[in-house]
Amino acid sequence: MSMLTRLDHVGIVVNDLDAALATYCDQWGFHLVQRVAVPDQHVEAAFLDAGNSAVELIMPTDSESGTARFLKNRGEGVHHLCFEVDDIEEALATVRSQGLRLVDETPRQGIHGRVAFVHPKASHGTLIELLQRSGNDHHHG
Amino acid sequence: MSMLTRLDHVGIVVNDLDAALATYCDQWGFHLVQRVAVPDQHVEAAFLDAGNSAVELIMPTDSESGTARFLKNRGEGVHHLCFEVDDIEEALATVRSQGLRLVDETPRQGIHGRVAFVHPKASHGTLIELLQRSGNDHHHG
Repeated sequence: MSMLTRLDHVGIVVNDLDAALATYCDQWGFHLVQRVAVPDQHVEAAFLDAGNSAVELIMPTDSESGTARFLKNRGEGVHHLCFEVDDIEEALATVRSQGLRLVDETPRQGIHGRVAFVHPKASHGTLIELLQRSGNDHHHG
Repeated sequence: MSMLTRLDHVGIVVNDLDAALATYCDQWGFHLVQRVAVPDQHVEAAFLDAGNSAVELIMPTDSESGTARFLKNRGEGVHHLCFEVDDIEEALATVRSQGLRLVDETPRQGIHGRVAFVHPKASHGTLIELLQRSGNDHHHG
């Protein structure tokens, strides 16, 4: 791995977070690590321990978000892969220098640190999130 | 984590494996670990090091496979999540006892060990592969 140091989590869009948590935790045996509302993203999210990585279940809370459009167009399922980077400014510069199309031209504050999304066209259909974790919020894998 | 011990890899279906490898390795900086043809699955696959986990790029080699149908219906993108289990017979029994719908009722031989797929309806739209790694083929994360 060069700039992408680890797979931080897989983001999965769901219709109903309570129903999805019942399935993932009660039936599959995942442990809930964190549940959080993200009003500025119009979503509610839940992070599940996946051992070396994590699963993020994401429920749109209205019809305004990208995740809501994803849900309407494609249905429930994997929405993005989040890779951790050591330095998000440097990572964005590298991505840009490779001619890969960005969603976020500059980093913004995410749940666990500074994040930026790279367009699915840059990875053959897979939406990639880059995450530089905040100082006190290290790997939970 | 209970029966699912770690996220072994994320499987991504692509149209053209050479083109996808050029993007993932040359532009994103992933390192190729293994490239393998799987004739009985009608696919060619490449595993990339993702630090704690791996990315599997999968190209259908004809129109007969499930991955070929996925590609035709949904386009390139994430196809499945593969979780490692210690004992696949036990894991399948647990999945079955939870009333979750299986694709493979019994394990079959995969690239890195015995595998079984669980239907996307069992996880809100996400196809899940269970993998019990073979004795000499341990974690590469």
